[in-house]
Amino acid sequence: MRMRKKPNLHPRMERCGAVWVREPKTMQGKWRSLAPEAKELHVEVGCGKGKFTVELAKARPDILLIAIEKVPDALVVAMELAIRENVKNVFFISEDAAELCEIFGYGEVDRMYLNFCDPWPRKKNAKRRLTYHTFLKRYAWILRENGQIDFKTDNGGLFEFSLEEFAASGYALQEVTRDLHANGPCGIMTGYEEKFYELGTPINRCVAVVTARPAEADVPALPGIPPAEQ
Amino acid sequence: MRMRKKPNLHPRMERCGAVWVREPKTMQGKWRSLAPEAKELHVEVGCGKGKFTVELAKARPDILLIAIEKVPDALVVAMELAIRENVKNVFFISEDAAELCEIFGYGEVDRMYLNFCDPWPRKKNAKRRLTYHTFLKRYAWILRENGQIDFKTDNGGLFEFSLEEFAASGYALQEVTRDLHANGPCGIMTGYEEKFYELGTPINRCVAVVTARPAEADVPALPGIPPAEQ
Repeated sequence: MRMRKKPNLHPRMERCGAVWVREPKTMQGKWRSLAPEAKELHVEVGCGKGKFTVELAKARPDILLIAIEKVPDALVVAMELAIRENVKNVFFISEDAAELCEIFGYGEVDRMYLNFCDPWPRKKNAKRRLTYHTFLKRYAWILRENGQIDFKTDNGGLFEFSLEEFAASGYALQEVTRDLHANGPCGIMTGYEEKFYELGTPINRCVAVVTARPAEADVPALPGIPPAEQ
Repeated sequence: MRMRKKPNLHPRMERCGAVWVREPKTMQGKWRSLAPEAKELHVEVGCGKGKFTVELAKARPDILLIAIEKVPDALVVAMELAIRENVKNVFFISEDAAELCEIFGYGEVDRMYLNFCDPWPRKKNAKRRLTYHTFLKRYAWILRENGQIDFKTDNGGLFEFSLEEFAASGYALQEVTRDLHANGPCGIMTGYEEKFYELGTPINRCVAVVTARPAEADVPALPGIPPAEQ
Protein backbone atom coordinates (compact mmCIF):
# COMPACT_ATOMS: atom_id res chain seq x y z
CA MET A 1 0.00 0.00 0.00
CA ARG A 2 1.33 3.41 -0.88
CA MET A 3 -0.13 6.25 1.12
CA ARG A 4 0.41 9.89 1.66
CA LYS A 5 3.19 10.34 4.20
CA LYS A 6 1.59 10.92 7.59
CA PRO A 7 2.79 14.01 9.40
CA ASN A 8 3.94 13.46 12.97
CA LEU A 9 4.00 9.70 12.47
CA HIS A 10 6.23 8.93 15.44
CA PRO A 11 4.44 11.00 18.07
CA ARG A 12 1.16 9.54 16.83
CA MET A 13 2.55 6.01 17.12
CA GLU A 14 3.73 6.73 20.66
CA ARG A 15 0.24 7.85 21.68
CA CYS A 16 -1.05 4.40 20.66
CA GLY A 17 0.89 2.57 23.38
CA ALA A 18 -2.28 0.96 24.78
CA VAL A 19 -2.74 -1.18 21.66
CA TRP A 20 0.79 -1.34 20.22
CA VAL A 21 3.08 -4.27 21.02
CA ARG A 22 6.54 -2.96 20.22
CA GLU A 23 8.60 -6.12 20.74
CA PRO A 24 6.30 -8.86 19.50
CA LYS A 25 9.00 -11.55 19.40
CA THR A 26 9.24 -11.42 23.20
CA MET A 27 5.56 -12.46 23.30
CA GLN A 28 6.05 -15.71 21.39
CA GLY A 29 3.99 -18.43 23.09
CA LYS A 30 2.60 -15.93 25.62
CA TRP A 31 0.08 -13.93 23.63
CA ARG A 32 -2.89 -15.21 25.60
CA SER A 33 -1.53 -13.45 28.70
CA LEU A 34 -2.80 -10.21 27.12
CA ALA A 35 -6.39 -11.45 27.48
CA PRO A 36 -6.56 -14.60 29.64
CA GLU A 37 -10.34 -14.73 29.34
CA ALA A 38 -10.23 -14.91 25.51
CA LYS A 39 -11.36 -18.20 24.03
CA GLU A 40 -9.27 -17.98 20.87
CA LEU A 41 -6.28 -16.15 19.41
CA HIS A 42 -6.87 -14.75 15.92
CA VAL A 43 -4.26 -13.06 13.72
CA GLU A 44 -4.87 -10.68 10.82
CA VAL A 45 -1.99 -10.34 8.38
CA GLY A 46 -1.89 -6.95 6.64
CA CYS A 47 -4.59 -5.04 8.50
CA GLY A 48 -4.14 -1.79 6.58
CA LYS A 49 -6.10 1.05 8.14
CA GLY A 50 -7.94 -1.34 10.44
CA LYS A 51 -11.61 -1.11 9.43
CA PHE A 52 -12.02 -4.91 9.26
CA THR A 53 -9.83 -5.35 12.35
CA VAL A 54 -11.86 -3.12 14.60
CA GLU A 55 -15.21 -4.41 13.37
CA LEU A 56 -14.07 -7.99 13.89
CA ALA A 57 -12.80 -7.27 17.41
CA LYS A 58 -16.12 -5.65 18.32
CA ALA A 59 -18.15 -8.47 16.80
CA ARG A 60 -16.11 -11.12 18.63
CA PRO A 61 -15.44 -9.93 22.21
CA ASP A 62 -14.63 -13.57 23.07
CA ILE A 63 -11.39 -13.54 21.02
CA LEU A 64 -8.00 -11.88 21.25
CA LEU A 65 -7.04 -10.38 17.89
CA ILE A 66 -3.48 -9.53 16.87
CA ALA A 67 -3.22 -7.39 13.74
CA ILE A 68 -0.01 -7.16 11.74
CA GLU A 69 0.83 -4.34 9.36
CA LYS A 70 4.26 -3.52 8.03
CA VAL A 71 3.41 -0.06 6.68
CA PRO A 72 3.59 2.33 9.66
CA ASP A 73 1.52 5.01 7.92
CA ALA A 74 -1.39 2.55 7.70
CA LEU A 75 -0.77 0.97 11.10
CA VAL A 76 -1.07 4.25 12.95
CA VAL A 77 -4.49 4.90 11.41
CA ALA A 78 -5.63 1.42 12.48
CA MET A 79 -4.36 1.87 16.03
CA GLU A 80 -5.99 5.27 16.39
CA LEU A 81 -9.27 3.79 15.19
CA ALA A 82 -9.08 0.97 17.76
CA ILE A 83 -8.42 3.48 20.55
CA ARG A 84 -11.17 5.81 19.38
CA GLU A 85 -13.61 2.90 19.29
CA ASN A 86 -12.40 1.78 22.72
CA VAL A 87 -11.79 -1.80 21.60
CA LYS A 88 -9.96 -3.79 24.28
CA ASN A 89 -9.34 -7.15 22.60
CA VAL A 90 -7.08 -6.11 19.73
CA PHE A 91 -3.33 -5.38 19.65
CA PHE A 92 -1.18 -4.29 16.75
CA ILE A 93 2.34 -5.13 15.64
CA SER A 94 4.54 -3.58 12.99
CA GLU A 95 6.20 -6.56 11.33
CA ASP A 96 6.52 -8.38 8.06
CA ALA A 97 4.52 -11.59 7.50
CA ALA A 98 7.84 -13.35 6.93
CA GLU A 99 8.48 -13.10 10.69
CA LEU A 100 5.35 -14.95 11.86
CA CYS A 101 7.15 -18.05 13.18
CA GLU A 102 9.34 -15.84 15.35
CA ILE A 103 6.33 -13.92 16.68
CA PHE A 104 3.89 -16.74 17.42
CA GLY A 105 4.58 -20.10 19.02
CA TYR A 106 3.92 -23.55 17.61
CA GLY A 107 0.16 -24.07 17.33
CA GLU A 108 -0.54 -20.86 19.25
CA VAL A 109 -3.01 -19.39 16.74
CA ASP A 110 -6.60 -20.54 16.19
CA ARG A 111 -7.47 -18.55 13.10
CA MET A 112 -5.85 -16.22 10.58
CA TYR A 113 -7.23 -13.59 8.20
CA LEU A 114 -5.55 -12.76 4.93
CA ASN A 115 -7.46 -10.00 3.18
CA PHE A 116 -6.60 -8.55 -0.24
CA CYS A 117 -2.87 -9.18 -0.16
CA ASP A 118 -0.68 -7.90 -2.99
CA PRO A 119 -1.14 -10.20 -6.03
CA TRP A 120 2.48 -9.76 -7.19
CA PRO A 121 1.37 -10.69 -10.70
CA ARG A 122 4.79 -11.28 -12.26
CA LYS A 123 5.84 -14.94 -12.15
CA LYS A 124 9.30 -13.95 -10.96
CA ASN A 125 7.63 -12.43 -7.89
CA ALA A 126 5.33 -15.39 -7.12
CA LYS A 127 7.31 -16.22 -3.97
CA ARG A 128 6.31 -12.86 -2.50
CA ARG A 129 2.60 -13.71 -2.60
CA LEU A 130 1.35 -14.33 0.92
CA THR A 131 -0.33 -17.52 -0.31
CA TYR A 132 2.85 -18.94 -1.84
CA HIS A 133 3.44 -22.41 -0.38
CA THR A 134 6.46 -21.37 1.67
CA PHE A 135 4.25 -18.87 3.52
CA LEU A 136 1.41 -21.39 3.86
CA LYS A 137 3.74 -23.90 5.50
CA ARG A 138 4.81 -21.33 8.04
CA TYR A 139 1.19 -20.42 8.80
CA ALA A 140 0.54 -24.15 9.39
CA TRP A 141 3.28 -24.11 12.03
CA ILE A 142 1.74 -21.30 14.09
CA LEU A 143 -1.84 -22.58 13.63
CA ARG A 144 -3.32 -25.28 15.86
CA GLU A 145 -4.60 -28.57 14.44
CA ASN A 146 -7.72 -27.70 12.40
CA GLY A 147 -6.88 -24.03 12.69
CA GLN A 148 -8.07 -22.04 9.72
CA ILE A 149 -7.22 -19.23 7.36
CA ASP A 150 -9.90 -16.90 5.98
CA PHE A 151 -8.68 -15.63 2.63
CA LYS A 152 -10.26 -12.93 0.46
CA THR A 153 -9.13 -11.31 -2.77
CA ASP A 154 -10.68 -9.47 -5.70
CA ASN A 155 -8.01 -10.84 -8.02
CA GLY A 156 -9.25 -13.92 -9.88
CA GLY A 157 -5.76 -14.96 -10.93
CA LEU A 158 -4.42 -14.80 -7.38
CA PHE A 159 -7.45 -16.72 -6.10
CA GLU A 160 -6.99 -19.68 -8.46
CA PHE A 161 -3.26 -19.72 -7.71
CA SER A 162 -3.98 -19.67 -3.97
CA LEU A 163 -6.51 -22.51 -4.09
CA GLU A 164 -3.84 -24.69 -5.68
CA GLU A 165 -1.20 -23.64 -3.18
CA PHE A 166 -3.51 -24.32 -0.22
CA ALA A 167 -4.45 -27.76 -1.58
CA ALA A 168 -0.79 -28.64 -2.17
CA SER A 169 0.32 -27.44 1.28
CA GLY A 170 -1.81 -29.55 3.62
CA TYR A 171 -4.97 -27.48 3.83
CA ALA A 172 -8.58 -28.57 3.22
CA LEU A 173 -10.65 -25.97 1.36
CA GLN A 174 -14.10 -24.93 2.51
CA GLU A 175 -16.63 -22.24 1.63
CA VAL A 176 -15.02 -21.50 -1.74
CA THR A 177 -16.87 -18.69 -3.51
CA ARG A 178 -15.98 -16.45 -6.41
CA ASP A 179 -18.70 -13.92 -5.65
CA LEU A 180 -18.98 -13.56 -1.89
CA HIS A 181 -21.50 -10.74 -1.94
CA ALA A 182 -23.67 -12.08 -4.79
CA ASN A 183 -26.74 -12.07 -2.54
CA GLY A 184 -25.94 -8.89 -0.63
CA PRO A 185 -23.19 -7.90 1.79
CA CYS A 186 -21.71 -10.94 3.54
CA GLY A 187 -19.50 -10.71 6.63
CA ILE A 188 -17.19 -7.92 7.72
CA MET A 189 -15.65 -5.98 4.84
CA THR A 190 -12.28 -4.29 4.67
CA GLY A 191 -12.14 -0.65 3.57
CA TYR A 192 -10.81 -1.73 0.18
CA GLU A 193 -13.50 -4.39 -0.15
CA GLU A 194 -16.26 -1.93 0.70
CA LYS A 195 -15.17 0.39 -2.12
CA PHE A 196 -15.08 -2.38 -4.70
CA TYR A 197 -18.38 -3.78 -3.43
CA GLU A 198 -19.98 -0.45 -4.40
CA LEU A 199 -18.75 -0.95 -7.95
CA GLY A 200 -19.88 -4.59 -8.05
CA THR A 201 -16.41 -6.12 -8.41
CA PRO A 202 -16.75 -9.81 -7.47
CA ILE A 203 -14.89 -10.83 -4.29
CA ASN A 204 -13.37 -14.30 -3.98
CA ARG A 205 -13.24 -16.03 -0.58
CA CYS A 206 -12.26 -19.37 0.84
CA VAL A 207 -11.56 -20.94 4.21
CA ALA A 208 -8.48 -23.16 4.36
CA VAL A 209 -8.28 -25.61 7.27
CA VAL A 210 -4.90 -27.00 8.35
CA THR A 211 -4.87 -30.76 8.05
CA ALA A 212 -1.12 -31.42 7.90
CA ARG A 213 1.06 -29.53 10.33
CA PRO A 214 4.84 -29.68 10.51
CA ALA A 215 6.41 -31.02 13.71
CA GLU A 216 7.32 -28.38 16.28
CA ALA A 217 11.06 -28.85 15.67
CA ASP A 218 10.66 -28.36 11.92
CA VAL A 219 10.09 -24.65 11.56
CA PRO A 220 9.56 -24.26 7.79
CA ALA A 221 12.19 -22.05 6.22
CA LEU A 222 11.27 -19.04 4.13
CA PRO A 223 13.74 -18.73 1.27
CA GLY A 224 15.42 -15.35 1.17
CA ILE A 225 13.46 -12.88 -0.94
CA PRO A 226 15.57 -10.21 -2.62
CA PRO A 227 14.49 -6.56 -2.49
CA ALA A 228 11.22 -5.94 -4.30
CA GLU A 229 11.08 -5.21 -8.01
CA GLN A 230 7.57 -4.35 -9.16
CA MET B 1 -0.89 5.93 -11.55
CA ARG B 2 1.52 6.76 -8.78
CA MET B 3 5.15 6.41 -9.67
CA ARG B 4 8.49 7.28 -8.24
CA LYS B 5 9.29 10.90 -8.99
CA LYS B 6 11.48 10.99 -12.06
CA PRO B 7 14.70 12.95 -11.68
CA ASN B 8 15.32 15.57 -14.33
CA LEU B 9 11.78 15.32 -15.61
CA HIS B 10 11.76 18.61 -17.47
CA PRO B 11 15.04 18.22 -19.36
CA ARG B 12 13.96 14.72 -20.29
CA MET B 13 10.61 16.02 -21.57
CA GLU B 14 12.39 18.67 -23.61
CA ARG B 15 14.54 16.03 -25.30
CA CYS B 16 11.33 14.35 -26.54
CA GLY B 17 10.34 17.26 -28.78
CA ALA B 18 10.14 15.02 -31.86
CA VAL B 19 7.10 13.17 -30.50
CA TRP B 20 5.64 15.67 -28.02
CA VAL B 21 2.84 18.01 -29.09
CA ARG B 22 2.94 20.77 -26.49
CA GLU B 23 -0.11 22.79 -27.54
CA PRO B 24 -2.55 20.13 -28.68
CA LYS B 25 -5.58 22.44 -28.74
CA THR B 26 -4.02 24.36 -31.64
CA MET B 27 -4.13 21.10 -33.60
CA GLN B 28 -7.88 20.61 -33.36
CA GLY B 29 -9.20 19.47 -36.74
CA LYS B 30 -5.66 19.42 -38.18
CA TRP B 31 -4.11 16.30 -36.68
CA ARG B 32 -3.85 14.52 -40.01
CA SER B 33 -1.36 17.13 -41.18
CA LEU B 34 1.20 15.37 -38.96
CA ALA B 35 1.02 12.31 -41.23
CA PRO B 36 -0.93 13.06 -44.42
CA GLU B 37 -0.35 9.54 -45.71
CA ALA B 38 -2.02 7.92 -42.68
CA LYS B 39 -5.30 6.18 -43.42
CA GLU B 40 -6.82 6.64 -39.97
CA LEU B 41 -6.40 8.69 -36.81
CA HIS B 42 -6.39 6.63 -33.60
CA VAL B 43 -6.31 8.01 -30.05
CA GLU B 44 -5.19 6.21 -26.90
CA VAL B 45 -6.47 7.71 -23.65
CA GLY B 46 -4.15 7.07 -20.69
CA CYS B 47 -1.11 5.54 -22.38
CA GLY B 48 0.94 5.14 -19.21
CA LYS B 49 4.51 4.14 -19.96
CA GLY B 50 3.68 3.47 -23.61
CA LYS B 51 4.29 -0.23 -24.13
CA PHE B 52 0.91 -0.75 -25.86
CA THR B 53 1.25 2.57 -27.68
CA VAL B 54 4.59 1.81 -29.29
CA GLU B 55 3.67 -1.77 -30.19
CA LEU B 56 0.42 -0.58 -31.76
CA ALA B 57 2.19 2.15 -33.77
CA LYS B 58 4.70 -0.39 -35.08
CA ALA B 59 2.01 -2.94 -35.93
CA ARG B 60 -0.06 -0.33 -37.77
CA PRO B 61 2.26 1.88 -39.85
CA ASP B 62 -0.84 2.92 -41.84
CA ILE B 63 -2.32 4.90 -38.94
CA LEU B 64 -1.49 8.06 -37.04
CA LEU B 65 -1.68 7.45 -33.29
CA ILE B 66 -2.08 10.18 -30.69
CA ALA B 67 -1.45 9.06 -27.12
CA ILE B 68 -2.72 11.04 -24.15
CA GLU B 69 -1.33 10.78 -20.62
CA LYS B 70 -1.87 13.27 -17.85
CA VAL B 71 0.90 11.97 -15.56
CA PRO B 72 4.16 13.52 -16.83
CA ASP B 73 6.33 10.94 -15.04
CA ALA B 74 4.67 8.20 -17.10
CA LEU B 75 4.45 10.24 -20.30
CA VAL B 76 8.18 10.87 -20.43
CA VAL B 77 8.90 7.13 -20.23
CA ALA B 78 6.46 6.52 -23.09
CA MET B 79 7.97 9.26 -25.25
CA GLU B 80 11.51 8.02 -24.66
CA LEU B 81 10.42 4.52 -25.64
CA ALA B 82 8.88 5.78 -28.89
CA ILE B 83 12.07 7.68 -29.74
CA ARG B 84 14.30 4.73 -28.85
CA GLU B 85 12.19 2.46 -31.04
CA ASN B 86 12.26 5.05 -33.82
CA VAL B 87 8.49 5.03 -34.29
CA LYS B 88 7.37 7.81 -36.61
CA ASN B 89 3.57 7.54 -36.51
CA VAL B 90 2.90 8.32 -32.86
CA PHE B 91 2.69 11.63 -31.01
CA PHE B 92 2.07 12.30 -27.36
CA ILE B 93 0.12 14.91 -25.46
CA SER B 94 -0.02 15.73 -21.77
CA GLU B 95 -3.68 16.41 -21.13
CA ASP B 96 -6.68 15.21 -19.18
CA ALA B 97 -9.33 13.11 -20.94
CA ALA B 98 -11.85 15.79 -19.98
CA GLU B 99 -10.29 18.05 -22.64
CA LEU B 100 -10.79 15.73 -25.63
CA CYS B 101 -13.43 17.87 -27.38
CA GLU B 102 -11.08 20.84 -27.25
CA ILE B 103 -8.19 18.79 -28.66
CA PHE B 104 -9.90 16.90 -31.48
CA GLY B 105 -12.43 18.15 -33.98
CA TYR B 106 -15.92 16.86 -34.65
CA GLY B 107 -15.67 13.35 -36.15
CA GLU B 108 -11.90 13.67 -36.54
CA VAL B 109 -11.04 10.36 -34.82
CA ASP B 110 -11.51 6.88 -36.29
CA ARG B 111 -10.76 4.76 -33.26
CA MET B 112 -10.02 5.13 -29.56
CA TYR B 113 -8.31 2.87 -27.03
CA LEU B 114 -9.22 2.93 -23.37
CA ASN B 115 -7.02 0.49 -21.49
CA PHE B 116 -7.26 -0.24 -17.75
CA CYS B 117 -8.58 3.10 -16.63
CA ASP B 118 -9.03 3.80 -12.92
CA PRO B 119 -12.19 2.01 -11.70
CA TRP B 120 -13.03 4.72 -9.14
CA PRO B 121 -15.01 2.13 -7.18
CA ARG B 122 -16.91 4.48 -4.85
CA LYS B 123 -20.36 5.39 -6.15
CA LYS B 124 -19.74 9.04 -5.30
CA ASN B 125 -16.82 8.96 -7.75
CA ALA B 126 -18.66 7.20 -10.61
CA LYS B 127 -18.60 10.36 -12.72
CA ARG B 128 -14.79 10.20 -12.79
CA ARG B 129 -14.79 6.82 -14.55
CA LEU B 130 -13.69 7.27 -18.15
CA THR B 131 -16.66 5.16 -19.25
CA TYR B 132 -19.23 7.30 -17.40
CA HIS B 133 -21.88 8.39 -19.89
CA THR B 134 -20.77 12.03 -19.88
CA PHE B 135 -17.34 10.94 -21.12
CA LEU B 136 -18.85 8.50 -23.64
CA LYS B 137 -20.95 11.26 -25.14
CA ARG B 138 -17.89 13.41 -25.64
CA TYR B 139 -16.01 10.54 -27.25
CA ALA B 140 -18.95 10.16 -29.67
CA TRP B 141 -18.48 13.79 -30.69
CA ILE B 142 -14.82 13.38 -31.69
CA LEU B 143 -15.38 9.95 -33.29
CA ARG B 144 -16.60 9.58 -36.87
CA GLU B 145 -19.82 7.73 -37.70
CA ASN B 146 -19.18 4.05 -36.91
CA GLY B 147 -15.94 5.00 -35.18
CA GLN B 148 -15.09 2.63 -32.37
CA ILE B 149 -13.68 2.40 -28.88
CA ASP B 150 -11.57 -0.57 -27.78
CA PHE B 151 -12.02 -0.95 -24.03
CA LYS B 152 -10.10 -3.29 -21.71
CA THR B 153 -10.16 -3.70 -17.94
CA ASP B 154 -9.34 -6.37 -15.38
CA ASN B 155 -12.06 -5.05 -13.08
CA GLY B 156 -15.27 -7.04 -13.45
CA GLY B 157 -17.38 -4.43 -11.71
CA LEU B 158 -16.12 -1.63 -13.96
CA PHE B 159 -16.69 -3.79 -17.04
CA GLU B 160 -20.36 -4.50 -16.29
CA PHE B 161 -20.89 -0.82 -15.45
CA SER B 162 -19.22 0.22 -18.71
CA LEU B 163 -21.27 -2.15 -20.88
CA GLU B 164 -24.41 -0.52 -19.52
CA GLU B 165 -23.06 2.98 -20.03
CA PHE B 166 -22.02 2.23 -23.63
CA ALA B 167 -25.41 0.70 -24.43
CA ALA B 168 -27.22 3.70 -22.92
CA SER B 169 -25.03 6.25 -24.70
CA GLY B 170 -25.55 5.38 -28.37
CA TYR B 171 -22.94 2.68 -28.87
CA ALA B 172 -23.36 -0.85 -30.27
CA LEU B 173 -21.34 -3.47 -28.43
CA GLN B 174 -19.21 -6.03 -30.25
CA GLU B 175 -16.60 -8.63 -29.33
CA VAL B 176 -17.61 -8.68 -25.66
CA THR B 177 -15.38 -11.08 -23.71
CA ARG B 178 -14.72 -11.54 -20.00
CA ASP B 179 -11.57 -13.58 -20.55
CA LEU B 180 -9.71 -12.14 -23.53
CA HIS B 181 -6.65 -14.38 -23.21
CA ALA B 182 -8.52 -17.60 -22.39
CA ASN B 183 -6.95 -19.34 -25.38
CA GLY B 184 -3.53 -17.72 -25.18
CA PRO B 185 -2.28 -14.15 -25.60
CA CYS B 186 -4.62 -12.11 -27.79
CA GLY B 187 -3.70 -8.74 -29.28
CA ILE B 188 -1.27 -6.15 -28.00
CA MET B 189 -1.01 -6.02 -24.22
CA THR B 190 -0.29 -3.05 -22.00
CA GLY B 191 2.50 -3.36 -19.44
CA TYR B 192 -0.09 -3.71 -16.69
CA GLU B 193 -2.01 -6.32 -18.65
CA GLU B 194 1.12 -8.36 -19.32
CA LYS B 195 1.84 -8.60 -15.60
CA PHE B 196 -1.67 -9.73 -14.74
CA TYR B 197 -1.70 -12.13 -17.68
CA GLU B 198 1.23 -13.91 -16.06
CA LEU B 199 -0.87 -14.44 -12.93
CA GLY B 200 -3.92 -15.55 -14.93
CA THR B 201 -6.17 -12.64 -13.95
CA PRO B 202 -9.03 -12.57 -16.50
CA ILE B 203 -9.09 -9.51 -18.76
CA ASN B 204 -12.41 -8.08 -19.99
CA ARG B 205 -12.65 -6.47 -23.43
CA CYS B 206 -15.28 -5.02 -25.70
CA VAL B 207 -15.51 -2.91 -28.81
CA ALA B 208 -18.11 -0.14 -28.74
CA VAL B 209 -19.20 1.29 -32.09
CA VAL B 210 -20.73 4.77 -32.25
CA THR B 211 -24.23 4.61 -33.68
CA ALA B 212 -25.67 7.86 -32.36
CA ARG B 213 -23.50 10.95 -32.63
CA PRO B 214 -24.37 14.40 -31.35
CA ALA B 215 -24.64 17.20 -33.90
CA GLU B 216 -21.46 19.23 -34.42
CA ALA B 217 -22.93 22.28 -32.68
CA ASP B 218 -23.89 20.25 -29.61
CA VAL B 219 -20.58 19.64 -27.86
CA PRO B 220 -21.62 17.51 -24.88
CA ALA B 221 -20.84 19.18 -21.59
CA LEU B 222 -18.78 17.48 -18.93
CA PRO B 223 -20.17 18.43 -15.52
CA GLY B 224 -17.54 19.94 -13.27
CA ILE B 225 -15.78 17.29 -11.23
CA PRO B 226 -14.53 18.48 -7.85
CA PRO B 227 -10.98 17.67 -6.71
CA ALA B 228 -10.42 13.95 -6.26
CA GLU B 229 -11.24 12.18 -3.03
CA GLN B 230 -10.20 8.54 -3.07
